[in-house]
Amino acid sequence: MGTSGKNFLGYRSSNMGDTVFRAKNPSTGEDLTTKFYEATDTEIDEAIALAEHAFVTYREKSGHEKASFLDAIASELQKLEEDLIALCGQETGLPAGRLKGELGRTTGQLKLFASVLRDGSWVDARIDLANPERKPVPKPDIRYMQMPLGPVGIFGASNFPLAFSVAGGDTVSVLAAGCTVVVKAHPLHPGTSELVAKAIITAAKKCNMPNGVFSMVHGVSNSVGQAIVKHPLIKAIGFTGSFKGGKALFDEAAKRKEPIPVYAEMGSVNPVFILPKAMQNSYVTIANGLSGSVQLGVGQFCTNPGITVLPKVDQTALFKEELRNPISTSESATMLSTSIQKGYESGLEKLKSKTKVESISKGVEREGCNQGVAEIIAVSANNFLEDKDLEEEVFGPSTLLIQTQEKDEMLAIANSLHGHLTATVHGTEDDLQAYADLLKILERKVGRILINGFPTGVEVCHAMVHGGPFPATTDARMTSVGTAAITRFTRPVCFQNFPDLLLPDELKQANPLNILRMVNGKYVIPEH
Amino acid sequence: MGTSGKNFLGYRSSNMGDTVFRAKNPSTGEDLTTKFYEATDTEIDEAIALAEHAFVTYREKSGHEKASFLDAIASELQKLEEDLIALCGQETGLPAGRLKGELGRTTGQLKLFASVLRDGSWVDARIDLANPERKPVPKPDIRYMQMPLGPVGIFGASNFPLAFSVAGGDTVSVLAAGCTVVVKAHPLHPGTSELVAKAIITAAKKCNMPNGVFSMVHGVSNSVGQAIVKHPLIKAIGFTGSFKGGKALFDEAAKRKEPIPVYAEMGSVNPVFILPKAMQNSYVTIANGLSGSVQLGVGQFCTNPGITVLPKVDQTALFKEELRNPISTSESATMLSTSIQKGYESGLEKLKSKTKVESISKGVEREGCNQGVAEIIAVSANNFLEDKDLEEEVFGPSTLLIQTQEKDEMLAIANSLHGHLTATVHGTEDDLQAYADLLKILERKVGRILINGFPTGVEVCHAMVHGGPFPATTDARMTSVGTAAITRFTRPVCFQNFPDLLLPDELKQANPLNILRMVNGKYVIPEH
Repeated sequence: MGTSGKNFLGYRSSNMGDTVFRAKNPSTGEDLTTKFYEATDTEIDEAIALAEHAFVTYREKSGHEKASFLDAIASELQKLEEDLIALCGQETGLPAGRLKGELGRTTGQLKLFASVLRDGSWVDARIDLANPERKPVPKPDIRYMQMPLGPVGIFGASNFPLAFSVAGGDTVSVLAAGCTVVVKAHPLHPGTSELVAKAIITAAKKCNMPNGVFSMVHGVSNSVGQAIVKHPLIKAIGFTGSFKGGKALFDEAAKRKEPIPVYAEMGSVNPVFILPKAMQNSYVTIANGLSGSVQLGVGQFCTNPGITVLPKVDQTALFKEELRNPISTSESATMLSTSIQKGYESGLEKLKSKTKVESISKGVEREGCNQGVAEIIAVSANNFLEDKDLEEEVFGPSTLLIQTQEKDEMLAIANSLHGHLTATVHGTEDDLQAYADLLKILERKVGRILINGFPTGVEVCHAMVHGGPFPATTDARMTSVGTAAITRFTRPVCFQNFPDLLLPDELKQANPLNILRMVNGKYVIPEH
Repeated sequence: MGTSGKNFLGYRSSNMGDTVFRAKNPSTGEDLTTKFYEATDTEIDEAIALAEHAFVTYREKSGHEKASFLDAIASELQKLEEDLIALCGQETGLPAGRLKGELGRTTGQLKLFASVLRDGSWVDARIDLANPERKPVPKPDIRYMQMPLGPVGIFGASNFPLAFSVAGGDTVSVLAAGCTVVVKAHPLHPGTSELVAKAIITAAKKCNMPNGVFSMVHGVSNSVGQAIVKHPLIKAIGFTGSFKGGKALFDEAAKRKEPIPVYAEMGSVNPVFILPKAMQNSYVTIANGLSGSVQLGVGQFCTNPGITVLPKVDQTALFKEELRNPISTSESATMLSTSIQKGYESGLEKLKSKTKVESISKGVEREGCNQGVAEIIAVSANNFLEDKDLEEEVFGPSTLLIQTQEKDEMLAIANSLHGHLTATVHGTEDDLQAYADLLKILERKVGRILINGFPTGVEVCHAMVHGGPFPATTDARMTSVGTAAITRFTRPVCFQNFPDLLLPDELKQANPLNILRMVNGKYVIPEH
């Protein structure tokens, strides 16, 4: 299946601009053939005007209609599996197995959100019934539900070319919420983005969705993204990427005449704490698990365990030894791009240039372009606490071991942390009870706390929180993975003394959608 | 009961500063006796440090403990009724009947939030159970709930000295969420604020709450509020007041190293649309209702109906006549302060200076200070649509009648509106069906839509939305009235593979709190 390099403005493709770019195969360093056209201001305006026009219709679609649309996108993507994985592999250097898994995650995610729409209870319907007899004034009938915000701008992520890109978690939350979407494709995988855009458009047409429900524009310049964020018809932004990129969008949005929410997920070092008895009992298992988690996807995950805090017990030395082996024999692999690979190298160099930071193990560099070589570095707790730079994310397959001398130092490290996506604690039952105060500190620092696991591998489910306090994200009140992500793109509206006929179905007296509702403060569960 | 003029830093009172001010009786223009001490930076720091320290303990309090605290505040306030109403009347010029009602609203609000805490289901608990057999990787156990953000800064409002001030809706949401609070008292009613602060502190001590769960500082300078917003330990802000004040806090918060949410409710003109048949059938009732709503509380409500859009039917002239009578014979009343009264006058003058805006009725000015005189002004739809200044809020007892010539003009006005708190439509069943498109437009413009009522009178209940798109508020995703206001001060945290013993009670397997939870995507309702 070929690619045109064009932008998709609703159902129409367009290449008005003069700025063109090509994707590069990071494994070979070679340019791929298709020329991609950066969207012009006129094209961006057209896409957003269509999104606004489509919103008026799309917001009225029932949960079942939107669910069928999401399912249809999943089905169109599945049909493209072979082409998608081939082209995406060329653009990203990611192995077919990983991409196949990621496609499964992407279609599974679409279907999971579709099931939430069919259930319908996500709108948080609340009804307070009238009481005309109340003194001194009668009580009105008031009914509340979540409703969509309007057209949303979504920025594809580089490191999940399917699951966090054009049809990824952000786009599916937007469409599930009843909003329309203008996606800025990530320039590292523009061809993959085009194939996915076509799948979404095919699904939209099949499901009789309005022209403009989905658009996608290309851009290598920051100006494309800024034009989206600044546009007065855009009502929210979703982004996954670097701190610098996310914070720039946040600042731009805050400066608008009408400020809008920006959900930027900007990375994290995902601290892992190993408690004494767990180290004594399980150092081999933990070392092997950590080695795997550090190297997974060449470390190009926002949940990569970037720092590992060690207790002072005899087995800590054995743990380091156990970790050294798989790392020192590990073979490097291709990273997503030259800039990501250079960023990894320079980030590591910056850490290693610090006093008292030492490298304790490094993998083997293979021949080839853009190789990410795994590396373990180490520092004392004292030195870590004195230098906040050591908490900076290094995007790639490394972790910084931090050697503590006592429990208080571990607590001090936890207390010193800024916001991250996750924190992990390895501990026996005794450990965990003895370090309950550590867990309480971590509750304030992250969106997800794991016991005896590893942070990579983010389950797409109802209870997931992929988020956390700044600078992990620009809005800790929300998650970007899991079905709770929908309400990033909604706000509550209430209806006072409405005739039943004019209420949304979710709020009609007879509960025709059979959804969970709170009535006079009590939850009334649907019957199935 | 006397007032000291001091700040309350946790359980300690303090007057370190040199800047002092006195409240003024707006009815007489005379200064009241107590000198109030503006908080110094040191005092503000101490209050916030205490709030952080107290948060570590307070966040662990059970729902029942927090509920008892809120109930105790209500009970302490009730004990002070006589003193409170006397002093508050002096500081605000508001009549005793209104203040008595407002105190009832304040204590009722505390008790309603206490009932939500006792129920416990508000935390949105979600559980996805483990599946160790799942391929290719086992499914972890993940459990999600809302948890408090940390210390919060709250700004008392001038126009609700009890219900939106020191123990008002913002403070009660903060405390219900499990956050600690530093209140900036409004300088128009500092003595009332002190009495309420003492009631909260008495309740906190009786309930064994940690020192610092509540603090209150005084300030006439903007610097006091800014010091709170800029403080790194403050995690969110709640504010009710002017656009200028709220937007300044929002901008300050966005510029912080760690940006924080600002919930500023900044006012609204609350458009009222009268549809043709309703005008024909009910012009007398609507005119009288509107006259009452415009004048309620001397128009000093954020839900005051500031514009009223009229259909072209014969009865519209009769409606205006019907409205003229009660307005022209209405007696002026004391506004909250000289600056509010001057703001009302100059706002009205600005509107009336516009071409084609005419005054059609004006009330009688009584002797006395700071008199707010009701006034009805009018303009054509054409002129309104050409001049966006006419949509600016004039805080006081007036409304701008907008005469349309046809339905399309009414829709154009609705489409042209920026965000407001409420919109009201008067219509018969036929009208409402014929104007269903108007209702759809309004859904995107406001937080609450009312049929055949008036926007003043905001019910404190579970389904209320007192919020709306910018510039009505800085965060349309939330409400500042009603129990849904709690989640302004929380964020979700999830727990992966936690031992049951270490989970919060809300998430323990046996559901010991008997709350509503979503388990594997299905809601499981508590048994009572």
